[in-house]
Amino acid sequence: MGKNRLEAFSDGVIAILITIMVLELKVPHGDRLDTLGPLIPVFLGYVLSFVYVGIYWNNHHHLLHTLHKVTGPILWANLHLLFWLSLIPFTTGWMGENHFTAVPCALYGVVMLMCAIAYWLLQQAIMAAQGADSLLRRAVGRDWKGNASPLAYLAAIPLSFWSPVLATSLYVLVALVWLVPDRRIEHVLD
Amino acid sequence: MGKNRLEAFSDGVIAILITIMVLELKVPHGDRLDTLGPLIPVFLGYVLSFVYVGIYWNNHHHLLHTLHKVTGPILWANLHLLFWLSLIPFTTGWMGENHFTAVPCALYGVVMLMCAIAYWLLQQAIMAAQGADSLLRRAVGRDWKGNASPLAYLAAIPLSFWSPVLATSLYVLVALVWLVPDRRIEHVLD
Amino acid sequence: MGKNRLEAFSDGVIAILITIMVLELKVPHGDRLDTLGPLIPVFLGYVLSFVYVGIYWNNHHHLLHTLHKVTGPILWANLHLLFWLSLIPFTTGWMGENHFTAVPCALYGVVMLMCAIAYWLLQQAIMAAQGADSLLRRAVGRDWKGNASPLAYLAAIPLSFWSPVLATSLYVLVALVWLVPDRRIEHVLD
Amino acid sequence: MGKNRLEAFSDGVIAILITIMVLELKVPHGDRLDTLGPLIPVFLGYVLSFVYVGIYWNNHHHLLHTLHKVTGPILWANLHLLFWLSLIPFTTGWMGENHFTAVPCALYGVVMLMCAIAYWLLQQAIMAAQGADSLLRRAVGRDWKGNASPLAYLAAIPLSFWSPVLATSLYVLVALVWLVPDRRIEHVLD
Repeated sequence: MGKNRLEAFSDGVIAILITIMVLELKVPHGDRLDTLGPLIPVFLGYVLSFVYVGIYWNNHHHLLHTLHKVTGPILWANLHLLFWLSLIPFTTGWMGENHFTAVPCALYGVVMLMCAIAYWLLQQAIMAAQGADSLLRRAVGRDWKGNASPLAYLAAIPLSFWSPVLATSLYVLVALVWLVPDRRIEHVLD
Repeated sequence: MGKNRLEAFSDGVIAILITIMVLELKVPHGDRLDTLGPLIPVFLGYVLSFVYVGIYWNNHHHLLHTLHKVTGPILWANLHLLFWLSLIPFTTGWMGENHFTAVPCALYGVVMLMCAIAYWLLQQAIMAAQGADSLLRRAVGRDWKGNASPLAYLAAIPLSFWSPVLATSLYVLVALVWLVPDRRIEHVLD
Repeated sequence: MGKNRLEAFSDGVIAILITIMVLELKVPHGDRLDTLGPLIPVFLGYVLSFVYVGIYWNNHHHLLHTLHKVTGPILWANLHLLFWLSLIPFTTGWMGENHFTAVPCALYGVVMLMCAIAYWLLQQAIMAAQGADSLLRRAVGRDWKGNASPLAYLAAIPLSFWSPVLATSLYVLVALVWLVPDRRIEHVLD
Repeated sequence: MGKNRLEAFSDGVIAILITIMVLELKVPHGDRLDTLGPLIPVFLGYVLSFVYVGIYWNNHHHLLHTLHKVTGPILWANLHLLFWLSLIPFTTGWMGENHFTAVPCALYGVVMLMCAIAYWLLQQAIMAAQGADSLLRRAVGRDWKGNASPLAYLAAIPLSFWSPVLATSLYVLVALVWLVPDRRIEHVLD
């Protein structure tokens, strides 16, 4: 199995996920500006998750870049990642509609953690298929972002019950770290 | 007609189906953990059907691998398969919301059986187009999973009325059989 | 502009349309078999429109087969076709939920007629771009199905107010004519 | 990163957006013609936004035509554009359901303005990546439509509070300007 169809299928699912999230922004009744008020937290949650799904799409592309042959474990590790990504619209909607309270914020972290673990498993499956001289293995060594993100999600889950604001800030921070290009840091780590 | 557009269209439909299922997981009112309780069976149904659609996507890809030219019967057999697959989100939602009771579990089996029959018809259409020295025909001989699955669905339909738990277990078992790699068995059958 | 992206975009829209229609099959409350009763006309409407969209996808592919360069008029004629196709889920849902009564059946015919006209316009745009020795122009001469279908829709619209059953039968008949391969007839017309 | 996957992903998102808008056309209760009455403004809003999204898809394709290598800023500028486009179904639905009143019309203009700005940023990112002899830079000089459109949106936002009809007319006018081929004007500007 070539990687083209795996990429196309993943792109399709991710494109649908990123668009389905906007359906949680339900058209309000009434045409005054203040009818949009209750939608603001839903909108902010949408922005955050849009960035996260965008990051996953970007990283997923780089991950598959060194891949040539799709094995059974890679195929299922990829579907496993898509499964957890598919839960992001649900947790985003729940978090937004409840204005970022404790349990929804914690569940958001749980799903983010599972996505990170699924991504790591996919990475392992690709490295296992590529064998000893895996191009990916060499690239992963300096992946401090990939290693730090799950720890941040892991910290944010209990933190949500103490201060959902701090937990959410942690999610925003992780997203920003991925967004901001950091050539200087990468050069040091090289 | 080349097979590229048939593959791309099928991938698109399957990617949308696998993602649409998650819309049955409706964001609950209230932000406490126990508001998620009623969603657990819906979630479990989603996991089961996600795996099934993933298996179909995977098998569909292998089925089309030996194909070069798309004939009219292949095209319509493929649309026929997509039609039955498109009913999976509905039956999954109905089964999940009713906590796996008799009729929804039986209907799930009916749709699964129709998907299996549609898959078999597509296989026949491809073998007919490839003629006597069909690559696919040789591969299908050892396809004990493909032959056993419809029998399992056929058994699960009446079983649902006696014990929906057993019927559901049968659906889970079939999914697991497809998931678990079975090189030893395949070698014996070679 | 190459035709690849036009094809991919059209495939995407058509794949989404064919899948969105199934969302009109709303999961009913209650788990007894008779709760599915009111869904039967919605289901039958879904089957009919699934076949129609499948036929359009198939014909669209053949239409673009002889195309090499996408001009502005072709691009907009294609979007115009996608627009009318995008209204099929709405009219299908309205017709199904009202159990095939007069006005919804007539509206179904109106949208079908507009789709046929949009398809014809796209055909004209492609022939205009290909000039005097258009491959498509030679193929279209024997397209009796393409010429008869709009007439059938045109007849079905007023017929809906007299007998919706007959109008619906006409829609089913047109779909069957497209589905059934008719090599004998085509050979006569050659 | 090649541009193929960026194009495919963008096409996927835009195809889903253009189709999701039709979901705001909710199947009405009752089968009489006058039950369609309240849907007319929603339908007109759908037509307008369908044309806008079609224009963006068309322009997006031309924008990427001169592109070979996708850099980080291009990738994120593209996702940023998709983000604002993804809000079009929401504002369209709100505008249509409220029969084109002041605030929804103004919000429609805000989202259109943000789309135009995001498009401009993507253009800048591509020109920056292509350097001094950018093919795109030469093409953009004569892009009077691209420069005039944001000004029209900017004017329509305050205009909405005075006369929503005029603001909407401005949106329609901008869409028409993009739709109508203007070879004479382009030749003058060459």
